[in-house]
Amino acid sequence: MKNLKVTIPAGEKHSYTIHIEADTLNGVLAEVDKLCPGKRPFIVTDKNLVKAGHLKTLLGGKDVPTYIIEPAGEISKHINTVVAIIETMEKAFFGRDTVIVALGGGTVGDIAGFAAAIFKRGIEVVQIPTTTVSQADSSVGGKTGVDSTISKNAFGAFWQPKAVYIDVETLKTLDDRQYRAGLVESVKHALIADDDYFQFFLDNIDAILQRDSDVLEKIAFSNCRIKAEIVEEDPTEKNRRRVCNYGHTIGHAVETASGFNLLHGEAVAIGIVGAGLIEHQLGLADNEQLDLIKKLLLRLGMPVTIPKEINKNGLLDIIKRDKKAVDKWPKFVLIEKIGTARCVDGQWAQDISKEMVKTVLKKL
Amino acid sequence: MKNLKVTIPAGEKHSYTIHIEADTLNGVLAEVDKLCPGKRPFIVTDKNLVKAGHLKTLLGGKDVPTYIIEPAGEISKHINTVVAIIETMEKAFFGRDTVIVALGGGTVGDIAGFAAAIFKRGIEVVQIPTTTVSQADSSVGGKTGVDSTISKNAFGAFWQPKAVYIDVETLKTLDDRQYRAGLVESVKHALIADDDYFQFFLDNIDAILQRDSDVLEKIAFSNCRIKAEIVEEDPTEKNRRRVCNYGHTIGHAVETASGFNLLHGEAVAIGIVGAGLIEHQLGLADNEQLDLIKKLLLRLGMPVTIPKEINKNGLLDIIKRDKKAVDKWPKFVLIEKIGTARCVDGQWAQDISKEMVKTVLKKL
Repeated sequence: MKNLKVTIPAGEKHSYTIHIEADTLNGVLAEVDKLCPGKRPFIVTDKNLVKAGHLKTLLGGKDVPTYIIEPAGEISKHINTVVAIIETMEKAFFGRDTVIVALGGGTVGDIAGFAAAIFKRGIEVVQIPTTTVSQADSSVGGKTGVDSTISKNAFGAFWQPKAVYIDVETLKTLDDRQYRAGLVESVKHALIADDDYFQFFLDNIDAILQRDSDVLEKIAFSNCRIKAEIVEEDPTEKNRRRVCNYGHTIGHAVETASGFNLLHGEAVAIGIVGAGLIEHQLGLADNEQLDLIKKLLLRLGMPVTIPKEINKNGLLDIIKRDKKAVDKWPKFVLIEKIGTARCVDGQWAQDISKEMVKTVLKKL
Repeated sequence: MKNLKVTIPAGEKHSYTIHIEADTLNGVLAEVDKLCPGKRPFIVTDKNLVKAGHLKTLLGGKDVPTYIIEPAGEISKHINTVVAIIETMEKAFFGRDTVIVALGGGTVGDIAGFAAAIFKRGIEVVQIPTTTVSQADSSVGGKTGVDSTISKNAFGAFWQPKAVYIDVETLKTLDDRQYRAGLVESVKHALIADDDYFQFFLDNIDAILQRDSDVLEKIAFSNCRIKAEIVEEDPTEKNRRRVCNYGHTIGHAVETASGFNLLHGEAVAIGIVGAGLIEHQLGLADNEQLDLIKKLLLRLGMPVTIPKEINKNGLLDIIKRDKKAVDKWPKFVLIEKIGTARCVDGQWAQDISKEMVKTVLKKL
């Protein structure tokens, strides 16, 4: 088993361990019981996890109250789902002595994490991420959030998990499109922080696409290591943690504009190419670098241009509403070169004019 | 002007100032502008404050986007109101560069504070409490919370304000019942922390009931001083801060059971007498002490027994759902004597059996 300790300096001193090992899901409830003595577990998961058999594996015959999110997916990542979960816990007399066990992808983790953050001013949560995206990204860092009827992640809180358990075997039941799209967050980590990791991706693309367990553990560990290092330095995203938004500003807008027909990772792939075009405009990247990144994304089966059916002018309006927008326009994260995020005057996100973004969207 | 600095050690280092002075409401927006440069103010208030003319005084002719909670009062302290406020801000393109200005009583402060805590993972909030309860209690300490359809304060977060502005003139437009009920939190502070303050209440009851400005400033300052001292030591209510729940466990249950026909302070008055009866049972208080407390509460026009129409057996079920309940039963805060909360083995809240509470409810 690979363990990684994450220490969050802000808030009350908080540290937790990320456990990474294949075929360990059936032991997690016993671990939670040891980790949180006297707490009652309440599982939050979704219909997909039930279908894939992972809830059954987690329960191992035990009877633990469970909320199953339906339908699975982004559409349920809404404040109404959080309210429904909390009212379900209340009806079953769950109180502050509850530990929420979140089994699922980023959507489940976000919903369950946010429910834990705001239930009776905060209870504990353990994350069991089961997708490429959530194992790479959303299970580390304590960001939780759900959507309003107006925009994505309108509601949210920083709330650190008590522990994270990653069993890469759960990735083997993902459908191919979801599996591949989830790898984009790993590519993002390589681009902002580790050029060797980018090379590992290029060298091992076949084993990755075949879901080889050893390669998957290596990816999970690299992602958590990179993310944890960034989050430890800047848990509440005052500055450096913004690098994790690489590709996400345009990516989120494209995702929203597609009516969520694009998966998050697919939209972020387009956003990464968008960031690459901005870098190219600024003279930070040459054609060769941009082509190498596009090549890897294409090998993963990702789109690298905005689908025709999306109105590019509408994207600018969506970007204005970005949650990171200050005075109706967000700052952008860029890279100096593969493996190195760009920092200007101590700032990890920079002003890019609306005009330049408009120009880039035309080319994208 | 009396200023009081509050320093919260948990979370990121955070300190803020409570400004106490009569007739200063019309200058608060200019102060907020200086305090939060570059932030856009968004006012949250309710219908009562509009009627009383306080919103007009705050605005002083300025045009600041405002959400007016309707109807005023506990019934609107619901997650749905928070969702409506946040969606209103989003539609008006308010982002992370927003400072919410909460003008009103504890309900407005709770709703607006919680909205600030969860909007885009947290924005700034300035509190302008305008009632006896909120000036005494809810504006200091960073607790925010709203109700679900099942119970009170099911949703909540700890979220410290950027500053608090107390203008005691706003108390003069309160109706008499609300004004008096709000003083119960002040009596609570005296009981748990300051016997001189209790004596001040007994000695100045006429001036208090006549709403003399000097006496009101003295009360506001004493309350904030006591509350701040407790909150600084224990911001997230791990232990000592629990003393602020004196009278609230039974009080909340009575308030809920009355269908909110009782005001919060009226219910807490009954809860304080309930706590007194428990102390009497335990041999901590004699009849004389209990009578003195009851006498003061009666002078304030408070009920000191459970209204006949409330089913006492139902109260036990409500107490089980108390947000502080562990294993379906909360601990209770008691006093050693007037001015001194009880601490047993380092714990400020203690186990009291269901049987004893049942016995006490019969007498109450």
